[in-house]
Amino acid sequence: MRMVDIIAKKRDGGELTTEEIQFLVRGYTDGSIPDYQMSAWAMAVVFRGMTPRETGDLTLAMAGSGEQLDLSSLKGIKVDKHSTGGVGDKTTLVVAPLVAAAGIPVAKMSGRGLGYSGGTIDKLESFTGFEVERTREQFLQQVRDIGVSVIGQSGNLTPADKKLYALRDVTATVEAVPLIASSIMSKKIAAGADAILLDVKVGKGAFMKSLEEAETLARAMVEIGKQVGRRTVAVISDMNQPLGFAVGNALEVKEAIETLAGKGPRDLTELALAVGSRMLLLGGLVASEQEGRSRLQEIMADGSAVEKLAQMVAAQGGDKKDVYDAERLPKATIIHEVKAQEDGYLTAIDAEAVGHASVVLGAGRLTKDMPIDLAVGLVLHKKRGDRVQKGDVLLTIHANKDELLQSALQELKGAYSISTEAPIEQPLIYKIIE
Amino acid sequence: MRMVDIIAKKRDGGELTTEEIQFLVRGYTDGSIPDYQMSAWAMAVVFRGMTPRETGDLTLAMAGSGEQLDLSSLKGIKVDKHSTGGVGDKTTLVVAPLVAAAGIPVAKMSGRGLGYSGGTIDKLESFTGFEVERTREQFLQQVRDIGVSVIGQSGNLTPADKKLYALRDVTATVEAVPLIASSIMSKKIAAGADAILLDVKVGKGAFMKSLEEAETLARAMVEIGKQVGRRTVAVISDMNQPLGFAVGNALEVKEAIETLAGKGPRDLTELALAVGSRMLLLGGLVASEQEGRSRLQEIMADGSAVEKLAQMVAAQGGDKKDVYDAERLPKATIIHEVKAQEDGYLTAIDAEAVGHASVVLGAGRLTKDMPIDLAVGLVLHKKRGDRVQKGDVLLTIHANKDELLQSALQELKGAYSISTEAPIEQPLIYKIIE
Repeated sequence: MRMVDIIAKKRDGGELTTEEIQFLVRGYTDGSIPDYQMSAWAMAVVFRGMTPRETGDLTLAMAGSGEQLDLSSLKGIKVDKHSTGGVGDKTTLVVAPLVAAAGIPVAKMSGRGLGYSGGTIDKLESFTGFEVERTREQFLQQVRDIGVSVIGQSGNLTPADKKLYALRDVTATVEAVPLIASSIMSKKIAAGADAILLDVKVGKGAFMKSLEEAETLARAMVEIGKQVGRRTVAVISDMNQPLGFAVGNALEVKEAIETLAGKGPRDLTELALAVGSRMLLLGGLVASEQEGRSRLQEIMADGSAVEKLAQMVAAQGGDKKDVYDAERLPKATIIHEVKAQEDGYLTAIDAEAVGHASVVLGAGRLTKDMPIDLAVGLVLHKKRGDRVQKGDVLLTIHANKDELLQSALQELKGAYSISTEAPIEQPLIYKIIE
Repeated sequence: MRMVDIIAKKRDGGELTTEEIQFLVRGYTDGSIPDYQMSAWAMAVVFRGMTPRETGDLTLAMAGSGEQLDLSSLKGIKVDKHSTGGVGDKTTLVVAPLVAAAGIPVAKMSGRGLGYSGGTIDKLESFTGFEVERTREQFLQQVRDIGVSVIGQSGNLTPADKKLYALRDVTATVEAVPLIASSIMSKKIAAGADAILLDVKVGKGAFMKSLEEAETLARAMVEIGKQVGRRTVAVISDMNQPLGFAVGNALEVKEAIETLAGKGPRDLTELALAVGSRMLLLGGLVASEQEGRSRLQEIMADGSAVEKLAQMVAAQGGDKKDVYDAERLPKATIIHEVKAQEDGYLTAIDAEAVGHASVVLGAGRLTKDMPIDLAVGLVLHKKRGDRVQKGDVLLTIHANKDELLQSALQELKGAYSISTEAPIEQPLIYKIIE
């Protein structure tokens, strides 16, 4: 088998065999297939696409290219959750303890933030002493003990995907749905998921800007799940405005805790229930989404969801007092209010602009090794559709440096749209693909 | 400027600016743009193509990527000739001395053969002592003295093309007309051509199998000529059967000499006159193709064409006696006749099969550094359309090893088609593109 023939076959619109895809992934991982052949192949995929069978094969081959997490010692169906990333997206912080409290074992690896998409691991570090690096045994033991652990990505998982992802980034081959879909799914499978709940974000603050694109990606991933025998459900949710009110690490943790207590923002609570209830369904704990939703609402109301988060924080070296007293979380020194200049209805809050403002403040990083400031960020006081009066506080900026506050204010120019007419209501969840 | 943006622009069907193309070629030549970006770009070109303006810019940038031959010390319009390669194609051996004898300065760099396409430089080495490596000064002085020199490609000409060509070969990006066309044209321009005559071969023994493909390539190259200010004419000629009778280095030299003397095969003579007369036209020596043709026929008839070849051979260290006495050229030890098994009309001689047979005998090389046997090859006795009777000699094989002869006979199985009906006449020259 020769890679040049595999490239030519894809270039001419052919369907690669399982053996050809395995050859390609194995060769790229061990270095016998060079980058310049892989990038030519990836560009051919941009134009020719891949069949569901090919995409499934690619996913499995990449999942098998390195270490794979063995979660078989944990009882029950392991349901993983993945979000394609957005602004103010603290859903995992809510959902992980929530479904764990309901009885779904959550052994989850999460990432750090890059650009204006925050990362669960960064957010968790807002708890003093919280350890995101754990040995495999510590990790699994914690899930056996308390039902939940969220740690950073570690070990040599999906090296083929890591290499290909970096290559695609510099060869303009990112935008190929089968490659995006298999990249995400291979990581979930290598991390031991039996079933997968995907939160595909769409809108100004998401990677996918149109519903059509988001749906195409969601369907591709659900189809991979079918091909490789992992039940997969995708929720397509709005990312035109930030999710919830808080954007920034400690600020989001505070909001997540409120949501776990049943006192969170309407949209975040709704998304957590929608995602969480479907995870209970996938995990076989409930018979209907409605049943799952009721169970989760009970868990929120009776305090056991917050208690589960507190257990996890304590188990990973943090202080559970932080969970019950948010005042203990990192706090910024400068609090600046941005007020409405006119009366009307809030018709848009540009999630991308808010995201950029949070990065400018120091809440996010532009390159992998940049330090971040856990305390800073923004808290919205109004959301799309709300009535505002001139002088109302639209949002509060939490900063630690005045010049960064000024830069953030620049980023926010034009982020808010106010009109005399109320906007048409926009759904939070556009579609469920399964 | 970033290469990833240039790739994305081409991927999305955009037209690159002159500056972007220069950036790309310069960066690839100096190594700042890696192979993996270049191959992704090349694959995008396979799908998106390039405009004539882009192709012209690419050609000039590659021509300027290394050393460029300065032929300005030679008087007159320097007309170069290029063939896309075929079986038995000894046209340059005929045309170079022919047009030089007519007054066109010929300072030509030629290549060695690869696969079943022979190379002029290999063929010239059939003359004992003939030197194909010359200093720039020797090369130019010889053209000033006797009007013609043909040497091997030397110096650091078009390094960008060399690198890209090798990369395309292993990344399935060979088949992109703008890349093929600019590769050929950049070499001619770097070699100092003021005007270019292209012989685009089409058929079973050529790179281009269909007339449509050949015409597309020819038009692309002629268009490049327009874009970069080099008058370019393309002749599209047949390569379904070998050109002339002889295939193999010394055998082809013998046939070329006969042709220079006006006693060559009909098709080779016709092609040499068609190509040569248009070179005289491009060089401004004659006012019409017909005038050029007459001039060349005179030069053949009065012996000055053969004399010009003899002068060149002598000037480059060979013995001019070889030119006047072909018996002195390398000769094979085994002469084997292949005879017709039936009566009828010869309807096809598969040029590719004959080419493979010649490679098997040792006349060609499969990899760049393989030695070749100058003496061996094949001589056809009949061509397409000829009547044959059972027992007539169809061709003679000249071999030096019996096992290679046997292998060559295997290659030739099915190469000849004989039918009771005469085939429809096929043109030697399909089209002239200018």
